[in-house]
Parts: sequence; structure tokens; C-alpha cells
Amino acid sequence: MALLNQSYLRLQGSYLFSEIARRVSQFKKDNPGADIIRLGIGDVTRPLPPAVVEAMKKAVEEMGREETFRGYGPEQGYDFLIEKIIENDFRPGGVELSGDEVFVSDGAKCDTGNFQEIFSLENIVAVTDPVYPVYVDTNVMAGRSGEFSGGRFEKIVYLPCTEANGMKPELPKGRVDLIYLCFPNNPTGVTLSREELKKWVDYARENRAVILFDAAYEAYIREEGVPHSIYEVEGAREVAVEFRSFSKTAGFTGTRCAYTVVPKEVNAYDSSGQAHPLNSLWLRRQTTKFNGVSYPVQAAAAAVFTPEGQRQVRELVDYYMENARIIREGLEKAGYKVFGGVNAPYIWLKTPGGLGSWDFFDKLMKQANVVGTPGAGFGASGEGYLRLTAFGSRENTIRAVTRIVERM
Amino acid sequence: MALLNQSYLRLQGSYLFSEIARRVSQFKKDNPGADIIRLGIGDVTRPLPPAVVEAMKKAVEEMGREETFRGYGPEQGYDFLIEKIIENDFRPGGVELSGDEVFVSDGAKCDTGNFQEIFSLENIVAVTDPVYPVYVDTNVMAGRSGEFSGGRFEKIVYLPCTEANGMKPELPKGRVDLIYLCFPNNPTGVTLSREELKKWVDYARENRAVILFDAAYEAYIREEGVPHSIYEVEGAREVAVEFRSFSKTAGFTGTRCAYTVVPKEVNAYDSSGQAHPLNSLWLRRQTTKFNGVSYPVQAAAAAVFTPEGQRQVRELVDYYMENARIIREGLEKAGYKVFGGVNAPYIWLKTPGGLGSWDFFDKLMKQANVVGTPGAGFGASGEGYLRLTAFGSRENTIRAVTRIVERM
Repeated sequence: MALLNQSYLRLQGSYLFSEIARRVSQFKKDNPGADIIRLGIGDVTRPLPPAVVEAMKKAVEEMGREETFRGYGPEQGYDFLIEKIIENDFRPGGVELSGDEVFVSDGAKCDTGNFQEIFSLENIVAVTDPVYPVYVDTNVMAGRSGEFSGGRFEKIVYLPCTEANGMKPELPKGRVDLIYLCFPNNPTGVTLSREELKKWVDYARENRAVILFDAAYEAYIREEGVPHSIYEVEGAREVAVEFRSFSKTAGFTGTRCAYTVVPKEVNAYDSSGQAHPLNSLWLRRQTTKFNGVSYPVQAAAAAVFTPEGQRQVRELVDYYMENARIIREGLEKAGYKVFGGVNAPYIWLKTPGGLGSWDFFDKLMKQANVVGTPGAGFGASGEGYLRLTAFGSRENTIRAVTRIVERM
Repeated sequence: MALLNQSYLRLQGSYLFSEIARRVSQFKKDNPGADIIRLGIGDVTRPLPPAVVEAMKKAVEEMGREETFRGYGPEQGYDFLIEKIIENDFRPGGVELSGDEVFVSDGAKCDTGNFQEIFSLENIVAVTDPVYPVYVDTNVMAGRSGEFSGGRFEKIVYLPCTEANGMKPELPKGRVDLIYLCFPNNPTGVTLSREELKKWVDYARENRAVILFDAAYEAYIREEGVPHSIYEVEGAREVAVEFRSFSKTAGFTGTRCAYTVVPKEVNAYDSSGQAHPLNSLWLRRQTTKFNGVSYPVQAAAAAVFTPEGQRQVRELVDYYMENARIIREGLEKAGYKVFGGVNAPYIWLKTPGGLGSWDFFDKLMKQANVVGTPGAGFGASGEGYLRLTAFGSRENTIRAVTRIVERM
């Protein structure tokens, strides 16, 4: 008799976005004339940069000719892309990587979700609260949690990010082995300084823990002194894996390309305490379960690193960051307490008057016809907050802020 | 301290293809003038069909315009592709599926590798021997095996495919819960008739087991009466999941698109014996850990189902199947015992004179300068066999067969 993986039964329904959809749909039914602006979803809206489109079309044509056709590529990605990644995304920050430390994939969601597979189920997992749900759910599915109780999974260590600590998690009090960090943060938009990040690297080195560092929003960092990569911090090569993506940078959410950096010094340990490099474990995982990213997609990603590609991607990020500024400044002027929006496309808004996330969500939808994402959906500490994103059009962003200011 | 998943340490090195590469490289060093023909690797060589190239270029252009840009798509694939899959790949064989029973992915390797995640570690896994190594390795990595001993993993049930049973596995004697079947088979090229497949479906129904049916080579079936889908067999909807791919059909090994069918009737059971539909479990897995296939790739896959696409794909398959015929008939005429090559792009050759797989591999490379894949690499029962593939060019295929006939 085929038995199921019972850990799946612990998962909570994908409550957040289905509940948002249900409420929006009900509201539209009751108010057919309402002009709803959605600033809830973390998806980009601007088209792919022209340099990317041209490179991808060229690669598709190559696939149609016998002399240039490509079958299976290396599971870990083509060298032509990996070399450009190292040269453009790391070398300028003083970070040196070798080609076999970079693994190209079809998404940071897949990579952050799959990476836990190479670790024992006995590890204690720490996540920030609020948090991107994929880190938690994939560990629950694997069996690293207890039951869901009081808004949290037993055995998972939650690190609260609150107004009191400026949305910056404190080091865990008890033992943890795997630590998920995401900076610039989704959903709070907050970043850590080099010194703040160093505390985590030091903790991981002292405790032989591993940091799973999600840098998907790195391109949105505007301020000097904020590290773009965890490897800018001394010692991080020994303890950290870094996830990056072309999704939010170059508009690849529907095109699918990302990569993961696994330095050769990062280890996990067997029960006798012997060290095993994560790099070989992840290589084995990827070569066994993955067949590489579509060649035209990798060619498209490589075009991001041409001079035109770099300029066009900067324009794209500038566009969204101008939206972020409009939202942040507009809300602050109207007296709201907000986090993020300076080095991140997310604005984390404290609900006024101690309103619950869902109550404020409803009020915002009804009075301003603007849809956000209730912070409670990202974890217990997100209660009393709402996430707005800068990924809308300029026009809608301005209209949404005007409405919030005038009608709320 | 971060502990690793110790099941990874049970894996054997990726011995097969690295050892082939090592021997070929050594031979080339010793014989710089040798003109080596590779019929070992299971990768296609013909370019993408023109209809596919055109559709993919058009989709890339759409991604470059604001009005037609697409961000995140549904994790399980776009309806436009799923509808065409059902209409073209299943309806003609009398199989009706609903749209939410088809999950589009970036590869059958990923799907066959990931699908085991939704099952308990307590299940007993059965595989044929010889076998596509991904089924075994992914279960070993998950922890469903004991140690590797005598060429096999403990706790995995191996079903020998031998000359005596015509390469058709017999039903397991003891209890098994998950059964991997691949027909047309890689590496033997053998197929099962509807009646033969029905025995497996009946076994699974009686034992509440699940069949994981890999139909990646379905397009190569030429003979009447050979089922193209396991769902052509009565009752299969209750017990079988089917994996399909555009890789070998339309030349997508470097473009990456596949799909998995999970009928709503197929169940796994919890420890109290309650049934849970695999369809919801797999949906949850995919929505949590996967972000869908690149839109241009899905548009390219959909073009396979246009009238021109269908004609072009047929030509592609015909081309490879003519190679298969040339290899099979050439070898048979020369007195070799061969399996496959009739409804599959693989020819499974019994080594003459009881030679070991690797000895024959060496002899073939040295005397004929032809590289195959030693059968022993696919499992203990593959010893004494060699796999040749029909994916080479026509010219090389003819030259390889001529050399084998003349020089061996």
C-alpha cells in the first residue's frame, strides 16, 4: 500500500493568496464599478529589456539550425553564463568565485525550496518572522517541523522582526543549524549592514551552522555600505550559500532563470562529525534531479550582462524604485509608519490605530480600492502590517498613493 | 551543527558516464587519428522543428512588449498548452483527462526524480533491472534504500529483465508499494502489450500500490496494439501516474519541457488507511517548490501540436527510427542478438561470446571506433549488454554499423 508523506498534512492551506482573491472577487461583485489597483502581488509588470529579447531570439534561431543546435547542457549551467555572473555580480564587490561554485537554475523558489534536501531531518531550522513562506513550507514537507499550533510550526525557530528591533532579527537563543536570511527582505524591505550581517556569519562559524542567504532583491540596494552579497562579509564563504535570481532584476518571473552560489568551503557534517562540502552534495542533487535551464533562457540571462543589458536593467530597477519612493514618501507624509522601500521594492506599512492586517486590508480595498498583502500572511509577527509592492505601473502607483492619502 | 542527509553517502559515484568519458579520452590520446562515432548518449542531434522555432520567437517578442508581457504563470502550466496536450496526446487513444490532471514541468528527469517526495519513506520501491538510474538514485537520496551491496541497494526491489523473459519484468513476489515502469524502455527498447501492462495495473489495484509510468519514448511506438499511454489500460486511472516529455519527441533536450499526468482517482494512504489524492499532494508540491516553465518554452511546446508541428515532429521521429532500423537490421544480419529498435530509439545488444559489458565496450571502441553505453551501468542485469542509440546523424549511424559488421 502506497503511504503518503504525512508531513504534507501539517501544511496549512495556501490561505493567504486564495483568501485575498476571494475577498477581492466578492468586493468586485458587490461593487462592479470599482477601479481596483493591485499593489499586493510581488510580480513585475515591465517587459523584458530589448537586449534580452534579442539574445533570446538569436538563441532560439540557433536551436533551429543543425550546426548550432544544443541538446542537453550541463545541469549546473553553461560556462558562458556562469563566467558573466561572477564577473558582473561578484567581482566588483571584491568577491571571487570559481565557475563550479555557481549553479544556474530555473528559479530561486526552486533552489531555496530544494536546498534543504541535502541536510538531515534532525537539523533545527530558523526563519525570520515575517518570512517568505517557501522556506517554512518546504521544511515542513520534508519533516523538519512539528504540528502547526498558535500560528507557528513546532520545532521551527522563529526570529521575530518587529518595530522594536527595526525589523532586524536577533541571534537565536538556543541551538539552530540552518538559518534562512533574506536581505533586502521580503516582505519588510529592510536590509542589514555589513556589521549586522557579520554577527550572523560569526554565529554560524561558531556553531557550524549554515546560512541560506536569499539575495533575490540585491539589485534594489541603493545606499552605499549595504552589502550586495553575503560574501562581502569576512568568513561567509565558510558558512553561507547565496541565492540570486533574474526575476526581479531583469523581469524574468515568466522567463525563469536564477542561480545559487555554494562556495567549496561550506560544509555539513555527518554523525561522526566529519565535514562534507555542500558544493559536492548540491552538485550531486542537481545532476541527479535537474537537467539544466533552457539554452535560450540562459542566453537571455547572459545578455543582462552586456553593456546595453546592464543599462536597460538599471532603467527597469530605477523605474520600480521610483515607484517605491512614491509609495514610501506619500505614506510617510500622510503619517503612516513604514519600513523598506529604500533598498527594496517592498514597503511594509504599519496599520494605523492597531488595526489587524486583514481589517486594514479590507478597509484599504473598500475605501481606496487598493489591494495590498496582509502582513499576517507572512507569519505571526506580520500581524498589524500590510505589504505594498513597487512593481505596478507608475500611473497606478501614483493613483494608489493619492487615494490612500485622500480616502483613508 | 548542520548535519548532512547521510543517505547521499550511499550513492555510488556517477561511475557510468565519467568512466566512459575517461576511457574515450584515453583512447583518443593513444590514437589521435581515430575517428570516433558516439552512439552512446541518449541525446538528440536534429534541430528544433521550424514551427517550434517560429512560435518560440514570437513568444519571446511578446515578452518584450508591455501589452503582451507575462510574469509568473500558473505553476502547473498554461491552459493553452495543457488543452493541446489532452487533445493531441490522449484523446485520440480514447483517454479523457481534465486540465487539472496535467502538470507541465521543465523535464521528465525532474518529475520522475521529485515525485517520490510526496510518499512516505516506508514505502518499498520496485524498479526494473536494467533501469534509468534516476528512479533509484532519487529514492536512495530520500532514504528509501539500505546500503549498496553486490551491485544493488538493499531494500529496493529489482525486477530483472533478461533474455529469458524477453526483457519484460515479472510481477514482484513480495510486497512493493511504488513501481517505476518505463515503456518503451530505456535502455532495452522493449515495449509491453496492453495485456502485459494490465497485469501491472491489476497488481497495483489489488495491493493499493502506485505505478510511476515513464512514457518519455511513447512517440517512437510504431506497431499497432502497443499502448501509448498506461491510461489505455482499464483501471490505470486509479493507480498510475504518467510522465511524458518533449525532449525526445520534438528535440527539447536543451529547451526543457515535459509534463506529468496525475488522475484524480490515484491515492496514497495515511497510517490510518485513509486515502489522499496524489493530485492534490503533487499540486501542493509543485506550487510550493516550482514556479512554472518559461512562457516562451510553453509556447514552443504548444507549437508541436499545430498541423505543421505534428508533421515536422513525425519527420524527426521517422529520421531517428530509420537510424534504429539500420542499426537493428545491420546487427541482426551480422549475427548479433538485439532487443528494441522497433518501437524505441534504443537498441540493446547482447555481447557476443559472453563478453562483459565493459570488455565489449572497449573492443567496440578499439576495433570499430564506436562508443556505446555498457549495459552494466544500468544495473546488474545489464551485464553482458550494450546500449546503442538512434539519435546520431544518418551518416554516422550507417558508418558505425558498417564498421561493426566489418571490423568486429
